[in-house]
Parts: sequence; structure tokens; C-alpha cells
Amino acid sequence: MSGWDRETAWLVGQAQAEYARCIDADELERWPDFFAEKCFYTVTTADNLREGLAAGLIWADTKGMLLDRVSALREANIYERHSYRHLLGRPLPCPAEHTDPPDEPRTETPFLVVRIMRDGTSSVFASGRYLDRWALSGSAPKLAERVVVCDSKRIDTLLALPL
Amino acid sequence: MSGWDRETAWLVGQAQAEYARCIDADELERWPDFFAEKCFYTVTTADNLREGLAAGLIWADTKGMLLDRVSALREANIYERHSYRHLLGRPLPCPAEHTDPPDEPRTETPFLVVRIMRDGTSSVFASGRYLDRWALSGSAPKLAERVVVCDSKRIDTLLALPL
Amino acid sequence: MSGWDRETAWLVGQAQAEYARCIDADELERWPDFFAEKCFYTVTTADNLREGLAAGLIWADTKGMLLDRVSALREANIYERHSYRHLLGRPLPCPAEHTDPPDEPRTETPFLVVRIMRDGTSSVFASGRYLDRWALSGSAPKLAERVVVCDSKRIDTLLALPL
Repeated sequence: MSGWDRETAWLVGQAQAEYARCIDADELERWPDFFAEKCFYTVTTADNLREGLAAGLIWADTKGMLLDRVSALREANIYERHSYRHLLGRPLPCPAEHTDPPDEPRTETPFLVVRIMRDGTSSVFASGRYLDRWALSGSAPKLAERVVVCDSKRIDTLLALPL
Repeated sequence: MSGWDRETAWLVGQAQAEYARCIDADELERWPDFFAEKCFYTVTTADNLREGLAAGLIWADTKGMLLDRVSALREANIYERHSYRHLLGRPLPCPAEHTDPPDEPRTETPFLVVRIMRDGTSSVFASGRYLDRWALSGSAPKLAERVVVCDSKRIDTLLALPL
Repeated sequence: MSGWDRETAWLVGQAQAEYARCIDADELERWPDFFAEKCFYTVTTADNLREGLAAGLIWADTKGMLLDRVSALREANIYERHSYRHLLGRPLPCPAEHTDPPDEPRTETPFLVVRIMRDGTSSVFASGRYLDRWALSGSAPKLAERVVVCDSKRIDTLLALPL
């Protein structure tokens, strides 16, 4: 499996839907499984992205760091206080960068996340786009890289669920 | 047609999109047509689901009960006071329960419903997921079962449009 | 390429996703490229639609008029004050009108647009449906017609980004 075709588009969309379901169902312990062994995850804003990824609000470049984040959330019991509902648009292929391996296509995918608080109130928590790079060597696509670019500069991800 | 494959995924997504269009276009009289002769429909919350389906806010196990609900809405003229806009995610197949016939696959699909009041104000009315079981024996998939699981415990469906 | 089939559905969905990305990425100068040479674009409300398209809030029947609108937005610098995030549903085919050429199928597609202000606040700006007619003669589908039907009567598109 390499490059971008209709089949890859389907599998990537499927993996993204399952990623969203995992978080929305509060199965955070499975969340790192959507990433490749060598991976990069960050949450940033459109404004910050222009200044470079280092300014990301959340930042992880190993699966261990993703697991640590889940542990921190569980210990803080923050997961009891709210849940998310992700709605995703269609993944669009991005032009490959010349450093990308040919079997790691990049996609851009719009998202919207509604946050539901324990008292029952709902609101648009975040909108933005996923900038993903996909490792396609296994049976299902894995995230080699996910850069979550939030549209708003007001995004408080401290002790929040992953996006 | 049986089980879950790419073709079924397409047809189920199509049926779900048409179901949503039917309600959003205020063509409620056609709404029961999306269900199989023998059907079950309920609206519940994630909290209630843990305690069992009997606690559903709306509950119907015949097409006649679905039609009754539409009649009640029409008589109450509630349909003049607001409209919905559904946005749906991708349907994901669920593991079959051992009681399921093999030609009735189950899916889980995230949804978001915006409610538009007659005065022009819009808000996120509900988010959640559809837990569906599909009867695939005819030309188009029909709902043998739809359990609407709302994320929020604050969901007022009394005399409201179906989800 | 003519009529409506699975392949057309895919291509139309792709074109719609790219149209949305173009606007959300503030690449408005490319926006008219999604339209056919002979085109029609209007933004209206469900209420106005019943009274006829002439009541549209925005109205263009040449690519030149679309370009003029982009120029006006750029000169007003309005594009600095907010951005959009589009979420689209699945395009459903509409019955052809007898005046339609057979290679220009019509679709209906639900949408939701979140507006993000420069101060960071987000809200549901608009929901509704796209009523599109597609020119399929080229390599990618082009909009021969897009009627944006907003659900709410409260829609302020004066000097706003296109939907």
C-alpha cells in the first residue's frame, strides 16, 4: 500500500472515524494505538502554526508521551467532567513534502468538536483541521504525525481530552 | 446482501443521509418508511443507556407508534416552531451480537443536530451517536433498530422532532 | 462522464470538500475556479426560497461577479476579522429538472459553518443545504449552479465570506 488512491482514502477515513470514536467513548487507553511506533502529535492554533510547531499547546514525539498524557488525565479525574463529540469532514490529500517517504501520504481533514459538560451543557469546543501523515505499511493506517490546528486562539487544552 | 462490506457501508450511509434529509425538510410523514416492518426506535442518553433502554425518552416498537408520534407533532403544530439540521459522521460497523441475524449488521454513527428556531436563533441541540441495526433484505437498507444515544443528559424531546 | 453514479458521487464530494477548504484557508482568489464559465451563485434562506430566488442575499451569475465579490472583501479587509470552518454532509442526488442537460446532475448537501472571530470566540454561523448543479464535462466537476439555502432567516452575509 503506497501513495494516495481511492482505497487509501477509504482506509484513512475509517482510521480517523475510529480514532474519534475511541476518544468520544472515553477509551483513552487505546488512543496511542492509532499512532505508529515513531510518531509526532501536537495541538496548536492557526496563529501559532505560522510561528512554528514548537509553540504547540500539547506536544509528544513518542508513544510513551501519549500514554503519559492519558495517565495524567486519569489521575486528575478530568475525564469525568466532560466528554467530546467529534464530527469530521472528508480527508483531502496534501502535496507530499520532499522528505516524506512515498508510503506516508499526508492529508488535511476538517473537524468540529462539541464538548458536553457533566451538567448537560454543550458547546462548540474546537474547530480546525488535522494535518496528518500516515504510515501505511501495516494492515490499517497509523498516524506517523498528527498536527491538530485549532482555528481559534482561545483553546484551553491543559488537562483536557485529546483532540 | 448480508454482513458488512464496502457496498453495505455505502448504502447504509446513503440511507442515513436520506433519513436526516427527510426530517430536516419537514417531511415527517415519510420518516417511518426508513424503518423495517418489525422495528424498534428509542431516544435515550448516555447516562440512561447504562441503566437500560427502558428509560428511553421516546420509545416505539411498531411503525404504528412512529406514525402516531408524527400525528401528535402535526396536531401540536410544533413543527412550525423549529427545524433541525443533522450532520452525520461515518458509520462504523459494530461487532454483531449473537442474537443478530447475519443479514442485520449493526453500526455506530456520530451525529450533531443544530436546532433553528422560528425567530432565527440557532444552537447545538443534540450530539450523540446512532446505534443502528439494519435489515438488508430489500433494495435499500431499513432500520430494524435505531437507538439514539444523546451525549447530554439535558435533552428535552417532549413534543420535539425525531432525531 | 454523465448522470449520477458512485464515481460521480465521489468526485462531487471531493470538489465540495476542496471548495470548503479554499474558503476556510482564506484562499478566496481561487474560489471562483470551482464554478463553470456559465454559472449562478446565490445565498438565500429557506423562507426566501419559497418566495423565489430573486430574493437572494448574495447573487452572481457570472464568474466576474464572483471575482468582484472577492475584491470587495479584500478591500474591506473583512477577511482579517473572522474565519469559517465548514462541515459538510453527504451529497444526495436530486431528481433532474426537465430543463437540465443530462451531464449536469443536481445534488443537495447539508452544511454547517462555524465562524471564528479574531478574539477567539466561535459560534454556529450558518446551517443549511447546498442545492448544486454540476458541469461534468471537464476533469473535475464544476458548479454550474450553487444555491446556498440557509436554515435561519437571521443570516447576515453583507461583506461576509462566501458560504
